Amino acid sequence: MEKENLGRRQVLAVIGGALALGGLQACGDDDNDGTTTPPEQPATGPQVADYPYDQHIAATYQIDPAKVRELAYQAYYNGGCCHGAFSGLIDHLSETVGQPFNLIPRTFGQFGAGGIAGYGSICGSILGGILIINSIVSKADVRTNMLTDLMRWYERESFPKYVPVTIAPNEAGKTTLDFTNVAALQVVPGSHLCHASVSTWCAANGVSTKSADKLARCSRLTADVAGKVAEMLNAYLSTGTYAGPAAIDDVSAGCLGCHGPATTVRPVASGMSCTSCHSDKTTGHP
Amino acid sequence: MEKENLGRRQVLAVIGGALALGGLQACGDDDNDGTTTPPEQPATGPQVADYPYDQHIAATYQIDPAKVRELAYQAYYNGGCCHGAFSGLIDHLSETVGQPFNLIPRTFGQFGAGGIAGYGSICGSILGGILIINSIVSKADVRTNMLTDLMRWYERESFPKYVPVTIAPNEAGKTTLDFTNVAALQVVPGSHLCHASVSTWCAANGVSTKSADKLARCSRLTADVAGKVAEMLNAYLSTGTYAGPAAIDDVSAGCLGCHGPATTVRPVASGMSCTSCHSDKTTGHP
Repeated sequence: MEKENLGRRQVLAVIGGALALGGLQACGDDDNDGTTTPPEQPATGPQVADYPYDQHIAATYQIDPAKVRELAYQAYYNGGCCHGAFSGLIDHLSETVGQPFNLIPRTFGQFGAGGIAGYGSICGSILGGILIINSIVSKADVRTNMLTDLMRWYERESFPKYVPVTIAPNEAGKTTLDFTNVAALQVVPGSHLCHASVSTWCAANGVSTKSADKLARCSRLTADVAGKVAEMLNAYLSTGTYAGPAAIDDVSAGCLGCHGPATTVRPVASGMSCTSCHSDKTTGHP
Repeated sequence: MEKENLGRRQVLAVIGGALALGGLQACGDDDNDGTTTPPEQPATGPQVADYPYDQHIAATYQIDPAKVRELAYQAYYNGGCCHGAFSGLIDHLSETVGQPFNLIPRTFGQFGAGGIAGYGSICGSILGGILIINSIVSKADVRTNMLTDLMRWYERESFPKYVPVTIAPNEAGKTTLDFTNVAALQVVPGSHLCHASVSTWCAANGVSTKSADKLARCSRLTADVAGKVAEMLNAYLSTGTYAGPAAIDDVSAGCLGCHGPATTVRPVASGMSCTSCHSDKTTGHP
């Protein structure tokens, strides 16, 4: 139980004065078991409690979306979609910003795989990205716009897009579809929910959700989402605000014309597209 | 910008040696604006990075679900459903366990209101509870069972149940329904998604999603969910495991008989109930 000795190690580290702002990195997952050794606890510099974290990021700082995408793609195979997006962003922020990102548990996102514990709820890569946006963006209205725009973007985007720098060892030689021509495999999910997104893609490509092809799709989608989050955060960090979100689609706007949140007859409070789940309500509905 | 001075304050705190394991508390939200002053950073004791946190909790420890429910109910009116559940549990754990719970930003859950930024996705109280379970439970298989059981329990439970100790100031005198007879207002949501859960309840009770009645319902539901999470964690902490999850309902099991995750023809990987959203597929479907 190495972790139980950290209290003494932290004391020694503080006495030694070895801990400087931004100089720490979370140790890598050398044995690929999804666990890491936490860094020594620094006495100075931004802490996890000093939230949100945009106050600790230099005005000129920008995330490298390309690096985040590859980190997210590789990490998918060590903990799933939410872990891929979460740790891809956290690892890059730890390396380039330092505290407090290197003090956050980098495996925290493993619970979100498969729409949270395989339940098929919100796509884990979206949830991982949401947790990072929420960690950084201090303005509540801007945060709301960014989270809405991320989920709406996901509904409408063709996935997967990412072309890995290095094919992950757990993927190599196992797929039946040709991911070198990734554009031919792309499908618009229509929903930000895992089970809808995965089912739509698997049905279109004639593979099961248990296949290596599904993993290859979701690992690239995880890279796409993590990269999108990086670009959104760069826009926010460079301007202090965020343009958007995109408007809801016309069909769903029509639904809300009668079933808007303020009515007392079957009201709906939702920013989601209605059409992907409620297709029976969008054709022949009074 | 008081937070920017924390580095110096932390140094002073370390030098003074005033920080002892478990002796810190997150300062209260005295001005009810949803923000708090983080505690001084302790040099010793469990840190946020020392994750998951069951290793820092005494074997005999149990959460007080009644206290968590009232905290969650009150906090709902200062930041929404996810904040209510998240901060209700965090505040209680900070007070009774101490580190590292008192080092976690207690307002982190505000992003989750209304199914994440009002988008109508996963119920925020569920998401807040999930983040706390994930913070504590170190066994991945047990964690998966607990998260699945929580979402499935939510789908099937009659909400709201909670009777507040003190009616929140922002609720008092504003409701049109009689919440003193809460059993008469209860509805089974059928789905763990916010927009479905809220719409079903509002339609059954003839109120809008913008009403004070909806807030009164969701604040009590937030207490119900936070209390359920407390009870689930108590079961885990006292036994090291968790019985469950409950099985998927028979109709959905029937759906998965043809559309299970392993088929290549319209496969579905989901633990959610199919019937609440896909009613057109459960009657007259081939």
